[in-house]
Amino acid sequence: VETLDVALRPWPRPQCRIRVGSGALESLVAEFAVSHADRRLALVTDANVLPLHAARLAELLAPVVRHVEVIAIPAGEASKTRESKAAIEDRLLAAAIGRRDLLLAVGGGMVGDLAGFVAATWHRGIEWVQVPTTLLAMVDASLGGKTAVNLAEAKNLVGCFHHPTAVFADVETLRTLPEREYLAGFAEVVKAAAIADREFFEQLEVDGEGLVRREATLLERTIVRSMRIKLDIVEQDAQELGRRAALNFGHTVAHAVELQPRRAQSSPSRWNHGEAVAFGMSVEGALAHSVHGFPADELRRLQALLRRFGLPTVAPRELDPLDIVAAARTDKKNRGGRIHFALPLRIGAMPAGDDVTLPLDEALLLQALQRAAGVD
Amino acid sequence: VETLDVALRPWPRPQCRIRVGSGALESLVAEFAVSHADRRLALVTDANVLPLHAARLAELLAPVVRHVEVIAIPAGEASKTRESKAAIEDRLLAAAIGRRDLLLAVGGGMVGDLAGFVAATWHRGIEWVQVPTTLLAMVDASLGGKTAVNLAEAKNLVGCFHHPTAVFADVETLRTLPEREYLAGFAEVVKAAAIADREFFEQLEVDGEGLVRREATLLERTIVRSMRIKLDIVEQDAQELGRRAALNFGHTVAHAVELQPRRAQSSPSRWNHGEAVAFGMSVEGALAHSVHGFPADELRRLQALLRRFGLPTVAPRELDPLDIVAAARTDKKNRGGRIHFALPLRIGAMPAGDDVTLPLDEALLLQALQRAAGVD
Repeated sequence: VETLDVALRPWPRPQCRIRVGSGALESLVAEFAVSHADRRLALVTDANVLPLHAARLAELLAPVVRHVEVIAIPAGEASKTRESKAAIEDRLLAAAIGRRDLLLAVGGGMVGDLAGFVAATWHRGIEWVQVPTTLLAMVDASLGGKTAVNLAEAKNLVGCFHHPTAVFADVETLRTLPEREYLAGFAEVVKAAAIADREFFEQLEVDGEGLVRREATLLERTIVRSMRIKLDIVEQDAQELGRRAALNFGHTVAHAVELQPRRAQSSPSRWNHGEAVAFGMSVEGALAHSVHGFPADELRRLQALLRRFGLPTVAPRELDPLDIVAAARTDKKNRGGRIHFALPLRIGAMPAGDDVTLPLDEALLLQALQRAAGVD
Repeated sequence: VETLDVALRPWPRPQCRIRVGSGALESLVAEFAVSHADRRLALVTDANVLPLHAARLAELLAPVVRHVEVIAIPAGEASKTRESKAAIEDRLLAAAIGRRDLLLAVGGGMVGDLAGFVAATWHRGIEWVQVPTTLLAMVDASLGGKTAVNLAEAKNLVGCFHHPTAVFADVETLRTLPEREYLAGFAEVVKAAAIADREFFEQLEVDGEGLVRREATLLERTIVRSMRIKLDIVEQDAQELGRRAALNFGHTVAHAVELQPRRAQSSPSRWNHGEAVAFGMSVEGALAHSVHGFPADELRRLQALLRRFGLPTVAPRELDPLDIVAAARTDKKNRGGRIHFALPLRIGAMPAGDDVTLPLDEALLLQALQRAAGVD
């Protein structure tokens, strides 16, 4: 048996240009007119975003590129499937979108994850550009290159890492967001501050009211700062091997909550992702307090800031702590039968070292959950 | 509008260990016993290869790894679809194949392309190992990291670049190949020699008879040499931007032939890929002769060597040169309305420079095809 050991050439370093602010969509059109005039464009969006922003963007782009094919899928997480991906691919084929053409994703996290995955595998990967139209997508989903669809049994099980070459985040698009969906985005903003930037956290305590009122200047500054934190962490660990786990603060509990059947959750309806993350940070903050002395007054400040954005920090009566623990047992970060958490030492500081996750016994999580339920 | 320019970290340099020879499958089992004892394994194969090789391999692996899930799909190119991919994914989910587990593809090019694409997107990419069981898969499809499925209208339109971490090519598996499928593999062997290694070409002229008789030592040496040529070229150009196009010698015409409806092709049945490539090299060799002086005696040697492996160098009467030209017009390498070819200067030498493809007028191709048809 003869052996050849081959060290293959790595892909070129991906580049991503991010534009944030009022008027970012106009910048997109101006830049496409210069750089993409000879390319065909597939604009993927959902039925909600189409009339609000995507149709207008398509109109502006039509005269400046070779062709704009608008592909709108039904809104909602239920569209994030292999079947939707195949339907979009059939449209790309019919519209003759080739390997040198471009995909533009306009919408929230669902649209970005799905359209990004389509781009990742069309002709084995074509260029794509993302226009996030929710706060959550701007500060979180649009960064890091993760794309995926769900299977019925599990979220994001099939996907790729495929970075967009540009992200255009126009804060004007946030004006059309329903209040609850808008505020949900602040869970990831607060998380970014809590794991990496104490000064930013204090600024959020000052700016809270203006941000709730959607003041454009404050929003722009806040989005850019949140993005920088996520980008720094992703840059350190592109393939999620160690330090990137810091971004999971609040998410072990959040995912466990999201796995609960709908009836177990309080009115007016199931928590959205941001709300689940807010509650998760509140519980995991309490864990951080008991296992490595996260200061009690900082935990209160964290919870107060989340409430300022209308986000939940205590569990509704219907949510059984034992069910949450059972669900957390299935978390994909777990190893060796222990539940893994990413817990800050204090506001703005994660543990040092390559692996920031901490394996804990279920009993500790149960305790923290019971305390969170009792405070209501 | 604020701008952040982000240079993202490249993926780590992928490594691939290739083992070639009689007994490579035993090496695989021994290595898995050491390195993968605690991992779950999905063994993907097709219904033809299952009884010949895959079932036995699964039996040998079962005692040395944590679990072996055997997934056999129907044999044939018709299985290379998005639907087959989804069916395999459903099996991976049911078998609890996680992000740290392993996929093993056992079969020809179809199995490798499909199973590799499954591995590329399962949990956003898991490790996979390839066991090619056809000569064509050993010397060509298993190298270069290309994975894909077909859409009804076009081959390999949806896929990823995702290198296996190891390839185990056991020449013993070639003993069970039907004669015509075995010989087809030599089209890519001859191509490798013709574009990059004159001495290897001369060795093939000497070894032809023994190779047709499937002599193990000759086969092993020939496979390793072919692999090195492809790996060198892929290493220079992992993402197929320029020099990798050298591998397309013979393939512009081959793809055009493969696009012809079945009735237009001669008995006993449609040409397989290797046969189409052999005919393609014969025609494109004639083109190379007319556009940049590829020597006439070397063209005769190329055609003689192909015929030695039972491969066609002239067109059957049913194949209309005008139909081939029309199909070549749709080739994805084309730009600016001209058909692009990768043509050697002489045996073993491609043109210098970053782009080895040459745009030619249709009339030249038509002429070469008419000459090829006339020789029969």
